[in-house]
Amino acid sequence: MEDIKERIKIDPERVALGIVNFIKDKVKSFKRQGAIFGLSGGIDSACIAGLLSRAIGKNRILALIMPERDSDENTVRDAELVAHKFDIKTKLIDIAKTLKSFSIYETTPGKFYSNNREPIGKIIKNAYRLIPNRSNPFLGGLLGTKYEWMKEVQAYYRIKHRIRMANLYYYGEKKNYLIIGTSNKTEDLVGFFVKYGDGAADIMPIANLYKTQVRVLSEYLGVPGPIINKESSPDLLPGITDEVALGISYEKLDLILLGLEIGVSDSFIQKEVDCSKNTIKYVKRLITLSSHMRNLPEKCQI
Amino acid sequence: MEDIKERIKIDPERVALGIVNFIKDKVKSFKRQGAIFGLSGGIDSACIAGLLSRAIGKNRILALIMPERDSDENTVRDAELVAHKFDIKTKLIDIAKTLKSFSIYETTPGKFYSNNREPIGKIIKNAYRLIPNRSNPFLGGLLGTKYEWMKEVQAYYRIKHRIRMANLYYYGEKKNYLIIGTSNKTEDLVGFFVKYGDGAADIMPIANLYKTQVRVLSEYLGVPGPIINKESSPDLLPGITDEVALGISYEKLDLILLGLEIGVSDSFIQKEVDCSKNTIKYVKRLITLSSHMRNLPEKCQI
Repeated sequence: MEDIKERIKIDPERVALGIVNFIKDKVKSFKRQGAIFGLSGGIDSACIAGLLSRAIGKNRILALIMPERDSDENTVRDAELVAHKFDIKTKLIDIAKTLKSFSIYETTPGKFYSNNREPIGKIIKNAYRLIPNRSNPFLGGLLGTKYEWMKEVQAYYRIKHRIRMANLYYYGEKKNYLIIGTSNKTEDLVGFFVKYGDGAADIMPIANLYKTQVRVLSEYLGVPGPIINKESSPDLLPGITDEVALGISYEKLDLILLGLEIGVSDSFIQKEVDCSKNTIKYVKRLITLSSHMRNLPEKCQI
Repeated sequence: MEDIKERIKIDPERVALGIVNFIKDKVKSFKRQGAIFGLSGGIDSACIAGLLSRAIGKNRILALIMPERDSDENTVRDAELVAHKFDIKTKLIDIAKTLKSFSIYETTPGKFYSNNREPIGKIIKNAYRLIPNRSNPFLGGLLGTKYEWMKEVQAYYRIKHRIRMANLYYYGEKKNYLIIGTSNKTEDLVGFFVKYGDGAADIMPIANLYKTQVRVLSEYLGVPGPIINKESSPDLLPGITDEVALGISYEKLDLILLGLEIGVSDSFIQKEVDCSKNTIKYVKRLITLSSHMRNLPEKCQI
């Protein structure tokens, strides 16, 4: 029987070296003159910043910092802390101006979030109970939903990452830079990303690392402590952290995902991770329902 | 030896039925309440309009018409002709307002195209000769380019389709509609689309049909004659038609692609299609250089 808790451990030095070489190879094979990525102030993009600074010269890296009206007030400060640490050039783009062209702030969620910043996490948490047979709204949103408020909220937050992607490609193409994605394996497997938003890039250097492994790698790379220790958040809706949205801690989620990956029994995972049968069932549903997000558009076979 | 010209023939009735069933299945399995797509006035989106109108009720279909400053003056009229023919609801969105938030019309290409509408096709045609060892700028653009004007032009036109994609998902998510892509097999294989732009959708019903097969299917579905007979254009840069950009006719390109697909020899294709050895080499290069556009972002294996 495999020991999941042993298996999740990584040697950050070896992993960093492998990813640095991967980035070097890809910038070359794509015939690009550098690399561009979105710097959010969170740990994943900070990890990418550290890796890029080892892979290519600082004059060939550009980080876009892309806040909007609903962004946490510390987003820009944290992103700049990371950029300073790794000596990376940044460009600050307030994407609110683009989002306004879609009038998103004038929609029901847009008006709601302008008046309710702090308590929104609690509101959403309570809203979970309103959805029949669904353990949380995130799960409900992976496939279509008939709930009007969920449709509105999904359209409202997902466009933000799609506009960020459009910015990355726009400025990347102007400089002939490779677009570097910052997704990790945990969010990839459970669909905790926006299809054609943060899920879209030319390469995904850390997409084979679980979130808790990204933390280990980030510490090794020298990502500043405040970035490593702050609670992860997609920064799309005020007050919604990753773990609030997912309804499970990364420590448990990663071990469950790894257990399923290496094929140990559910009961073994349950014991090892100290979680319920339903939690494992929930994670399996996330994987299944999000599969369309990890695949190319389906073609009709004729 | 296979006869390519026979093999490219389709039975439009059988193909239409298959695709209609595919669309029905996917709307159901994705748990969506309808379907949304971009209607450009071109043959591919007209074909999709015809297929959707057979697959689902007209009250569950929405076509977005998304012109911008550089669009052909007939774009909206042609799109409306198609919508009227298939009795499909439309929403007109001038994406120039979003593009302006990126200041694209104030860039060098933006200023250039505002003053030069008609003769631009010829200008680009001549520009082909400026690119060393490349038969045309489209080929040169599939991977990175060091030419400053090409970088600027690529950033300038590609963002348009990415903003169209963001609109499709935004309005699609508001209504819980499935996002239907309009790409065909020819453009898919040679990379004649924008990565994460028109290449992004939930399903791609006609992506296994070559362009000339889409024409046959469109005639069968009753797509209006003017739409079938007009020259195809991505409508991204004034005056640039598909065949100008690609430097080859669809009749020849489709037969070469099919020949390569079924594995007949280059010399057989050359004779059957009446093309040069270099043309086949060119098509093979398009396929190779565009492969990153047909695949998911590359992950680093750790």
